[in-house]
Order: sequence, then structure tokens, then C-alpha cells
Amino acid sequence: MAVRVFGLPKSTCTSRVLLVLEELGVEYELVPVNFAAGEHKQHPYLERNPFGQLPAFQDGDLSLFESRVITRYLVRKYGKDSGLLKETAPEEAAAVDQWMEVETAQFNPAICAIVFQIVILPIIFGGTTDEKVVEAQLDKLGKVLDVYEARLSKSKYLAGESYTLADIHHISYIHYFLTATPHASFFDSRPHVKAWWEAISSRPAIAKITAGLSFK
Amino acid sequence: MAVRVFGLPKSTCTSRVLLVLEELGVEYELVPVNFAAGEHKQHPYLERNPFGQLPAFQDGDLSLFESRVITRYLVRKYGKDSGLLKETAPEEAAAVDQWMEVETAQFNPAICAIVFQIVILPIIFGGTTDEKVVEAQLDKLGKVLDVYEARLSKSKYLAGESYTLADIHHISYIHYFLTATPHASFFDSRPHVKAWWEAISSRPAIAKITAGLSFK
Ligand SMILES: N[C@@H](CCC(=O)N[C@@H](CS)C(=O)NCC(=O)O)C(=O)O
Ligand SMILES: N[C@@H](CCC(=O)N[C@@H](CS)C(=O)NCC(=O)O)C(=O)O
Repeated sequence: MAVRVFGLPKSTCTSRVLLVLEELGVEYELVPVNFAAGEHKQHPYLERNPFGQLPAFQDGDLSLFESRVITRYLVRKYGKDSGLLKETAPEEAAAVDQWMEVETAQFNPAICAIVFQIVILPIIFGGTTDEKVVEAQLDKLGKVLDVYEARLSKSKYLAGESYTLADIHHISYIHYFLTATPHASFFDSRPHVKAWWEAISSRPAIAKITAGLSFK
Repeated sequence: MAVRVFGLPKSTCTSRVLLVLEELGVEYELVPVNFAAGEHKQHPYLERNPFGQLPAFQDGDLSLFESRVITRYLVRKYGKDSGLLKETAPEEAAAVDQWMEVETAQFNPAICAIVFQIVILPIIFGGTTDEKVVEAQLDKLGKVLDVYEARLSKSKYLAGESYTLADIHHISYIHYFLTATPHASFFDSRPHVKAWWEAISSRPAIAKITAGLSFK
């Protein structure tokens, strides 16, 4: 039986998982969750993810939540030779872990807040963008991207010369940031960041999933 | 040569690494960083961690930052048989990853904000606790601990019947929360959370490190 992902194509965290499934060529079923009706905040969905968030995941008897945990599992289970985690030597694996954690701890909080304020809050919740929050988070994001620019001037991808999970984890939020906010210059003005984005966003496995990333 | 940790005993993120070193019995040198003088925001420290945060880490030629990346590396390199990561089967490993990510994504943002407001802001930065922030984050923490209570009613530790990195990663912030804020009841009033804390905080490897967790 195919693995199942419970979520929505437009959800950044769901698509983080879908991007890895496409990259690995693993068969999957996407089970839609009725977000508008609050299905994710009720039983039985809460048995899949007690925090009431998208996505959740099922592979046979194994039930998981947290997008970055699901992607790590998928690579271990179905992509041992994909090079996406480099878990053969602890030193190589640590480089991938390093930049995955930077995405989680430094990059994601800033870009997530910006995309929420500019895209999700007005369109989904009918709210008004708080420009002060946007400004503060753009400032943080700029500092993070300065670190990326320095890093990517030394290696083609974040964790070295090959494409890894650390790169993939960035795709969904950057896609929204570039297509649905007026701040694309944050990426374009940094030449190594720009080249990196061009390399990772032109991979064939990406197009089908990023096409679903829209609130229009 | 012993591995080197650049940081301070009272820093929660530094001590997350020290706890794992003690648990594994790995020899290490703690190289103090002059936080008050802003040493972590200047070169050469910024070459160790471009985000200017504690801790940083060195093992021979390998240089790392991000506490949770360092601990994962340490277990892989020096604690293959410790059971702290269970990386033998992808399903077992995913359970540990699951609860490590819950710590990072759900637990840490709330408890970190509370400890910052009540302990670090007044003592280190001479600021005033924002009670509204504390209240909002206590509410979030309570919801996270409800999920932990349900989980820990089914297994002794977060990732199953044995102690793992997922448990260790919680120790430093809980220690501050219980010893330096007036909200210990958040943990005491949830019987399975309380029993879990008693189990993990009574391990011999813990005492030396938690003794350093104080801003007094
Ligand atoms: N750390 C989680 C975050 C999940 C998350 O925030 N999902 C969003 C959709 S992209 C959601 O369900 N938001 C609704 C909510 O948090 O109530 C993951 O990576 O899976
Ligand atoms: N995600 C990082 C966070 C590191 C962190 O926030 N360190 C604190 C000390 S516990 C720090 O250096 N704060 C100063 C700052 O952020 O400027 C980790 O786990 O290593």
C-alpha cells in the first residue's frame, strides 16, 4: 500500500513532505484535510497529530507527524542511496543536520512570519498585515540570508557539493516568498543565494508540487 | 585530543551538549565565551557560529554549531550503542526524531520565552518581565504538556520505553523553569509528566551539569 500524507497541497509543511516523495519517486496518496472546517483540530485527526497541524503521515503501522521528521524517515526508508542525508559517516551527516537545523531554528521562524502576515492572514483569515512584524522579520531574514550567501559562496548547496534534505526543506516557503510577496529582491540581490535557488527550483521533481503552492 | 565546546555552563543550549557528553562519558573541554563582552558577536567566534550564539563545537577538523546537531553527532560518533538515537531501524529512529522535533518546534519556543522573560531578561539585561508574554506562553506550554501527559501515560519516556536524546534535550529549560520561576505546578500537576521528570532528572550524569544552570 502507498504511504499516505494527510494535508493540503498549498500547505508549506505538507508540500515539504510531498517534495521529498516526488524526489525519491515514492508512490503516495494525499488525503485532503478540511482545514476550513477545522478538521485538523478535531478527532480523529488529533490522533494523527495531537498538535492539530498539517501534515500527518502513515506508512503501514507507522504513524508520524512533523514534516521534517517524516522527510528524514522517507529518505532512510526509501532513499538510502539518494544522498539526501549522507548518513554513512557521522561527519558528513552532521553537515546535512547542521543546515537542516539552521532552516528550522533560524530561517523558518522569520520567513514563516512574513508569509503568514502578507499571504495567509489576509487571504485565509481576513486579517490585516502587521507591517511592523513584517519589517522586523525581514530584518532577521536578511541576516540569515547573509549567512547563506557566505556559505553558498563556498559550496554549491547548503551541506556541500550535492543536493540534500537541507536544501529541499527551504523550497515551499521561498516559493511563496518569491511569488506572493513584494520582497523577491531579498533573494535576487544575493548572487550565491540566487544561483542556489535557481539550481534547486529547476529540479524536475519540484514543478508539480510548487504548482500547488497558491492561495489564489 | 578531547572535543571542545565553546559556551557557558549556565547557557541552556551549551548545557544540552554537556549533558550528552556526560551521559556518554566522552572527554571534553569547555572553552568559556565572554558573553558579557559580546565575544560571541565578534570574530573569531563568528567563524565558529555565524549566528553569534552559544554553543559552538570542535572535534578535530569538524566544526559545528546548533546544540541539537552537536548532540546527534556525538551519539553517532561516540555512542552508537547508547540507544540514545535508535538509528538501527528507520521506524525506531523516527520515534526519537518525532519527539526531538516536538521539543524543538512546540516545547522550546514556549518555555524559552517564559524563562527569558522571568529569569534572563531581568537578571542579565536589566529589563522588566512582560507579563502578557508570560501568560500567552504559559498557555501554549500547558497545551504542549497536555500532549506530553497523554504520551507519557503510554510510555515511560517520550520515544518509548528507553531514555533517548528526545528526553535529554528537555532538561536544561525544565530545570530553569522549576528552580527559577513560580510555575512549577505546570509540571507537578500532570502525574505522568512529573514521573518522567523525576526519572530523567535523577540520572547520575545530570547533576554536575544542572548545578551550573543558575544566573544567581
Ligand atoms: N512543525 C510543524 C508545523 C506544522 C504547521 O504549522 N502546519 C500548518 C500548515 S502549513 C498548520 O497546520 N497550521 C494550523 C495551526 O497551527 O493551527 C511541521 O513542520 O509539520
Ligand atoms: N538553536 C540554537 C540556539 C542557540 C542560542 O539561542 N543560544 C543562546 C544562549 S543559550 C545565545 O547565544 N543567545 C544570544 C543570542 O541569541 O544573541 C542552539 O540550539 O544552539
